Amino acid sequence: MAKQAKKAITPTRSEDYPEWYQQVIKASDIAEQSPVRGCMVIKPWGYALWENITRKLDDMFKETGVKNAYFPVFIPLSFLEKEAEHVEGFAKECAVVTHHKLEKGPDGGLVPAGKLTEPLIVRPTSETIIGDSFSNWVGSYRDLPLLINQWANVVRWEMRTRMFLRTSEFLWQEGHTVHATEKEAMERTEMMLDIYAKFAEEYLAIPVIKGKKTAAERFPGAVETMCIEAMMQDRKALQAGTSHFLGQNFAKASGIKFQSAEEKEETAWTTSWGVSTRLIGGLIMTHSDDDGLVLPPRVASSHVVLLPIIRKPEDRQKIMEFTDNLAKDLRSQYYHDRKLAVEIDDRDIGGARGWDWIKKGIPLRVEIGPRDIAENSVFVAMRNKDHKDKTSIKRDDFVAEITRILDNIQKELFERALSFRKEHTILINNNKAFYDFFTPKNEEKPEIHGGFAMSCWCGSDACEAKIKEDLAVTIRCLPFNTETETGECICCGKPATQRVVFAKAY
Amino acid sequence: MAKQAKKAITPTRSEDYPEWYQQVIKASDIAEQSPVRGCMVIKPWGYALWENITRKLDDMFKETGVKNAYFPVFIPLSFLEKEAEHVEGFAKECAVVTHHKLEKGPDGGLVPAGKLTEPLIVRPTSETIIGDSFSNWVGSYRDLPLLINQWANVVRWEMRTRMFLRTSEFLWQEGHTVHATEKEAMERTEMMLDIYAKFAEEYLAIPVIKGKKTAAERFPGAVETMCIEAMMQDRKALQAGTSHFLGQNFAKASGIKFQSAEEKEETAWTTSWGVSTRLIGGLIMTHSDDDGLVLPPRVASSHVVLLPIIRKPEDRQKIMEFTDNLAKDLRSQYYHDRKLAVEIDDRDIGGARGWDWIKKGIPLRVEIGPRDIAENSVFVAMRNKDHKDKTSIKRDDFVAEITRILDNIQKELFERALSFRKEHTILINNNKAFYDFFTPKNEEKPEIHGGFAMSCWCGSDACEAKIKEDLAVTIRCLPFNTETETGECICCGKPATQRVVFAKAY
Repeated sequence: MAKQAKKAITPTRSEDYPEWYQQVIKASDIAEQSPVRGCMVIKPWGYALWENITRKLDDMFKETGVKNAYFPVFIPLSFLEKEAEHVEGFAKECAVVTHHKLEKGPDGGLVPAGKLTEPLIVRPTSETIIGDSFSNWVGSYRDLPLLINQWANVVRWEMRTRMFLRTSEFLWQEGHTVHATEKEAMERTEMMLDIYAKFAEEYLAIPVIKGKKTAAERFPGAVETMCIEAMMQDRKALQAGTSHFLGQNFAKASGIKFQSAEEKEETAWTTSWGVSTRLIGGLIMTHSDDDGLVLPPRVASSHVVLLPIIRKPEDRQKIMEFTDNLAKDLRSQYYHDRKLAVEIDDRDIGGARGWDWIKKGIPLRVEIGPRDIAENSVFVAMRNKDHKDKTSIKRDDFVAEITRILDNIQKELFERALSFRKEHTILINNNKAFYDFFTPKNEEKPEIHGGFAMSCWCGSDACEAKIKEDLAVTIRCLPFNTETETGECICCGKPATQRVVFAKAY
Repeated sequence: MAKQAKKAITPTRSEDYPEWYQQVIKASDIAEQSPVRGCMVIKPWGYALWENITRKLDDMFKETGVKNAYFPVFIPLSFLEKEAEHVEGFAKECAVVTHHKLEKGPDGGLVPAGKLTEPLIVRPTSETIIGDSFSNWVGSYRDLPLLINQWANVVRWEMRTRMFLRTSEFLWQEGHTVHATEKEAMERTEMMLDIYAKFAEEYLAIPVIKGKKTAAERFPGAVETMCIEAMMQDRKALQAGTSHFLGQNFAKASGIKFQSAEEKEETAWTTSWGVSTRLIGGLIMTHSDDDGLVLPPRVASSHVVLLPIIRKPEDRQKIMEFTDNLAKDLRSQYYHDRKLAVEIDDRDIGGARGWDWIKKGIPLRVEIGPRDIAENSVFVAMRNKDHKDKTSIKRDDFVAEITRILDNIQKELFERALSFRKEHTILINNNKAFYDFFTPKNEEKPEIHGGFAMSCWCGSDACEAKIKEDLAVTIRCLPFNTETETGECICCGKPATQRVVFAKAY
């Protein structure tokens, strides 16, 4: 048996997927646990990724007329009580502010003092507080549509946390819009879902399935929740973004009314939609490998690292000059609205240097040694290829071709992820096959299962609940753009008209 | 007596300056009070201003090697207790999280439940929590300097709030750096102050005085606090940004140590520096007038509004076509790294339309009527001039000249503010004159006083405290770049060697 090449991440994906995920985060230096329960610190290499994600999404939102605003981090307790279904879903686990100062206690330490008349909740989402503002901002049909987005931190007191996927505090955007008609609000809900899908596929290189949630999986208080669902490399689903059609529920609770063109008072229709730092978790689990993080070029924290190879001190000046000139030429170019970001790493730490950048997932590594300079060429490695696979390219060709090279990497990452999803997505029409598909073959690896099952569902809550209880499998979505089908419910066998996506999920 | 032209803002600055400030905010639609005590809602026209401020500052920070990161919003109580002086200064008024969920209470309403073992503080500033991370990130001199910035919301439970100037929650950036030597940390403290001064003067068009604070006015725990101070139109001072040299105080408290090149364990030197949404308060009070907000072009929420004048329905198509074409030509241009932002307002609401934009402070208003089109010209008004002062400019000249016109406005705003400050800054060497300078002449307008007094100070806490008690006047800063002077303390008459800036302050 051939000796397996050692990988940079221990354990590998097949050895222990959840632990591999944590180790990729650690090795790439994008984030770490903080001393505050369930909260993480996003380190510079991870935050740069978030900046690239937010800038592009922000541009895409603004192109559709959305404007940014900022609302208070605190929500009075009474606001949460306004929308009954919403409070059921959200108020349970949250950070509650009860005091507004600290005093010296009897033992000399600090203790909370100045009890608030009404406790404040650190926002888990802002529908209620934004709804209150909107009720003042909207008076006439002329004020509509109102298209607002907020970039903010939110807090949900999660019992079991996992970095980027489920943390007590996370960063996100929440869009909130108000419309005069049901039709327009529904169109906006779909439009924002389309933006999320486009962004996920074209920028994060994550293929997604668009669809709507079942009633059981809806956002608390929403009439319809639409989502994009992606398959991770452990074949589990990740909900990567949601767009909610709220009907008139929140407008009624907050009193968002307007005078119509016919001078009648009408209740408005609202939507909300959001994506969060969870996208980074999805990106890691879609593309990364047993050598660490793999970053899609269009959102990568940086695009290319130059690695001067200086074996003799007398070569230093010449090599650094060549390196600095190359960096300058690269940095003068744009790649998808961003200046090309170039790192120079001249640390004298041997092979560890190259591995550092492999683990950090930078798309391109460029080695520059005396022989390369003599030939006016560079030695280029791509993160999506084997780490030993390096190509000599003429220096000027590299400068001329780099944006095309990056776009090829971007494309390949997307196609690889799409193939993986296709490979593990199966149409199943038989109850036993369905249960087999989701039953781990290896008791030591309970997380390994089939993937996405496209199966028919009769629409009953009972069947959905039974499958969830038996297999911990949920209906991820009722996908759009699928044909009506005459089939039998995978659970009860009764007639069903649509095939839905069943999967285990994060 | 000539009838005074009616102004858009009631009251005017001279009638009631504090109320004028609130009315400018309301009329320009940049922010409003929220239902949460002391917190504001930043509306789209105000948030766009903040976005322009943050983007430019962020670029300026990054040019000096600073990288962004994100740390938890919560700080464990025990962290605040680490640095004694710091906790004295900060822990008093803050939002304290004591519970992590809500439950149905006996009367059916929600009540806090799940008491935390250790209360959490919503960050008033992040030195302590960031210090904890830094103690893990820094091991060797090779890890230094560490240059980190965070854009975040912070909370200080203020008893008396005023929008943008003093709110319980505000948005800011906080930079935190770690260095191997005292000299390098001090240089970084000065470098960031220089960036703030440059940004204030070149982008916000606010002239500032750079200097250092007295011991009494220092940031809690800092060895040296440097600041930029600006004069508002009521002649009071506004501290617009601070940069702190923290010596080894926070490094000792957090255990930020490193192995030197000589393999000795050493304690690091740190700095922190920040500006906040308070800059918007300063911008309003520097430039705005009795007709509302005046925005400096380089940070303006938008640059120009096109106002088609359609008196006859049959003219509409032609006028809108001309307007849309003009907008297209303008939007294809850049003004200081930002695409020109163009509004089109075709509402049929008469003169109120022009006034709306005057109150919102947009730098340029462009009227487009049938006669203008016939002459291929536009009718341009500038916000820094009288509202009736409009000029006809050839359409193509306007397109070619707009960035120059905007920069002229920018320059004029700065020069006007600088003249105002010079006019109200006086060298005073006599105790009686000093007291007269700060004593209101009109009992009904206690806020009107002389302005900035440049007077000598002996350096004693007692003199500083006496003047503060007698006149509510503080030493704003010991300005840099002033010559040593042989004088007498304005308070006690003892020998003094430096002239300092005395003023009433926000």
